[in-house]
Amino acid sequence: MGTISEEILGRAAGKKACAGEFVIARVDYAMSHDGTSVLAVKALKEMGVDKVWDPSRIIIPLDHLVPANNETTALLHKELREWAFSHGIVHFYDVGEGICHQVMAEKGFAMPGKVVVGADSHSCTYGAFGAFGTGVGATDMAEIYASGKLWFRVPETIKVTIDGGLPKGVTAKDVALHVIKHVKADGAAYKALEFYGSTISEMSMAGRMTLCNMAIEMGAKAGIVPPDARTEAYLEGRAVEPYAPVYANDASYCDEYHFDSRISPLVACPFEVDNVHDVEEVEGRHIDQVLIGSCTNGRFEDLREAARILDGRKVKCRTLVIPASRGVMLEAISSGVAATLLKAGATICNPGCGPCLGGHMGVLAQGEACMSTTNRNFRGRMGKGAEVYLGSPLTAAATAIEGKIADPRRYL
Amino acid sequence: MGTISEEILGRAAGKKACAGEFVIARVDYAMSHDGTSVLAVKALKEMGVDKVWDPSRIIIPLDHLVPANNETTALLHKELREWAFSHGIVHFYDVGEGICHQVMAEKGFAMPGKVVVGADSHSCTYGAFGAFGTGVGATDMAEIYASGKLWFRVPETIKVTIDGGLPKGVTAKDVALHVIKHVKADGAAYKALEFYGSTISEMSMAGRMTLCNMAIEMGAKAGIVPPDARTEAYLEGRAVEPYAPVYANDASYCDEYHFDSRISPLVACPFEVDNVHDVEEVEGRHIDQVLIGSCTNGRFEDLREAARILDGRKVKCRTLVIPASRGVMLEAISSGVAATLLKAGATICNPGCGPCLGGHMGVLAQGEACMSTTNRNFRGRMGKGAEVYLGSPLTAAATAIEGKIADPRRYL
Repeated sequence: MGTISEEILGRAAGKKACAGEFVIARVDYAMSHDGTSVLAVKALKEMGVDKVWDPSRIIIPLDHLVPANNETTALLHKELREWAFSHGIVHFYDVGEGICHQVMAEKGFAMPGKVVVGADSHSCTYGAFGAFGTGVGATDMAEIYASGKLWFRVPETIKVTIDGGLPKGVTAKDVALHVIKHVKADGAAYKALEFYGSTISEMSMAGRMTLCNMAIEMGAKAGIVPPDARTEAYLEGRAVEPYAPVYANDASYCDEYHFDSRISPLVACPFEVDNVHDVEEVEGRHIDQVLIGSCTNGRFEDLREAARILDGRKVKCRTLVIPASRGVMLEAISSGVAATLLKAGATICNPGCGPCLGGHMGVLAQGEACMSTTNRNFRGRMGKGAEVYLGSPLTAAATAIEGKIADPRRYL
Repeated sequence: MGTISEEILGRAAGKKACAGEFVIARVDYAMSHDGTSVLAVKALKEMGVDKVWDPSRIIIPLDHLVPANNETTALLHKELREWAFSHGIVHFYDVGEGICHQVMAEKGFAMPGKVVVGADSHSCTYGAFGAFGTGVGATDMAEIYASGKLWFRVPETIKVTIDGGLPKGVTAKDVALHVIKHVKADGAAYKALEFYGSTISEMSMAGRMTLCNMAIEMGAKAGIVPPDARTEAYLEGRAVEPYAPVYANDASYCDEYHFDSRISPLVACPFEVDNVHDVEEVEGRHIDQVLIGSCTNGRFEDLREAARILDGRKVKCRTLVIPASRGVMLEAISSGVAATLLKAGATICNPGCGPCLGGHMGVLAQGEACMSTTNRNFRGRMGKGAEVYLGSPLTAAATAIEGKIADPRRYL
């Protein structure tokens, strides 16, 4: 009897887990990337531990600053490679494999009922597969490296139900922004979200990943979609081990929201993720750069949506497309999507996080504005003195064509 | 009566030009990129000049640090865009179009008989088309911006003749390294090179660009291939204006070299470009990163050669492939070459200079070694304390498979 989080954490703790309680839970898979692994390794050393709990359950993708943007990063990568090799880490993904969360999904580590912890805030993405996916800091990750277990405060859960088909030009990203608009940026702090309703059950796995990815933007520890036939189909031949789905069972929720899917394409304006407006309200604002990519919206489906709009048209401002993984890039190539985007004048970059966090590969200048499919738009995120607007790949593509915020419905 | 350089500079100066003399020559096209334009613009302002001589003859591609690697670069790009717009620069190529020299060729600015000057040392690449192509500093470029003319000391010319077909596994890059091995890194200082012989006449335009590109690595002001039917075929429908080929005419040369094309694949070892060895001599040396790209070897032909070797195989070290332009990337995609490279485990980055000059996108860590298809391997070029080996795309691909320097002939 419990929410999905209570059920999963209870199973992982070997005892009943109720919201508000603390439990020590077994972690199924642990992920850390180039931005956080080095800190986790340092913390592990400080704990005096040299051996990791299970080298086949630690996944290390290099994604944040790839290829290395300077000598400091290059050295960090080098040391991480050496550490991973010397500790027998089985799943080390070097430069070019893709963004950690996409790699975790593609390689079958995110599965229903599992506890999948990442040293990255957007590890809530794994909830798209019915996992309890959550982000932790480097010290907590070191604890997992050492023991395979971690303390959790079992979160209360907010039940979010969204019903109805998605109108033309409206995508999972818009649904996510709609939820954020109402729940607010701090509205789910240390809570879990569970997503229900026909909109969700009709949503592709890519769309569910987009939605769950943004749970942390409301402060949530997890955002979970109950697994179904789509989940199973995605994991068929991909899941690295057997899994047993977990569902809510006569659960009690701390709050409930009901939404109707009949919304406009939405844009989160600077500098808060919950400063969300219908695209009609912000149309025409000047944009210098468009970014289509990230763990939020860098999947093949996202690139294909952008290509639908960009096909046969030309971009008016610089437009970066960053596939979330090598697999996404390959699919974009074989399907003709990559060629369409290039012909429209877009620049296709290597898989990785790109400029989402302002580290390299498309940092903005002071005074510039970016329409981005990423997840964060706080002051300075992609460059000091620059503005970030968040929208869907469709809205980003329409904006690229006009060089100002544009309603994608005009191009569909 | 004269060398190609004397003939071209004479025509551009409106008077006979003999080696050793100073002439003021009309410049047909001037190119500056994101690394040098800002300095040229600054110098122009200091000269008190606000209007450029001819906004249709100045070409500005952004290529060195694209997409912007940090806020400083982003601001520099922004200011350059604004300057180009306010001065009516017709041929401004933003992030993603490609490396300046490739763009100059693809867009038809490099033509026989023309004086094409770039604020980049590898502007000698244009000699592949029978142009007098040379690199200048920012102050000289400002002078061209202002007046369309520049002082030149007419260079003496070294005649290089290479005869014979290229053996298996040997490419234009190996020919270039062979010439450099014998002429030496300072052997052509302020001289021009003219390339003759059956090896050259059988060489593709891409190969000629590779060869002429490396003229500066011997200190040469220019490296020129007499235009022929291949040149014309390339320029058909591409040249931006009519051109009249120029040939040497009863010329006298300051030196002559004859080479036989029957050579091994060659590698320039750290830290001098003329520290050239047969690949057999250096096989087995550990390599951390392979780079296939740059103005030297980032053309479709180069990527296709690499794909020949990588097809159905897997790379053993991180392997970056950087197409020289959007056009190259498109061709790599439509031909299947891009998919082959990705499947082999390579990372395909956006068009641009990449890490060739150690600025971003694949900088090496201290103690690492790179096998690179680029043109420079001096200490620190791609990262402090790192080593760069220069070779052909074939040698680079074979090396990627083994993670150590490898002879490409074993894979052909």
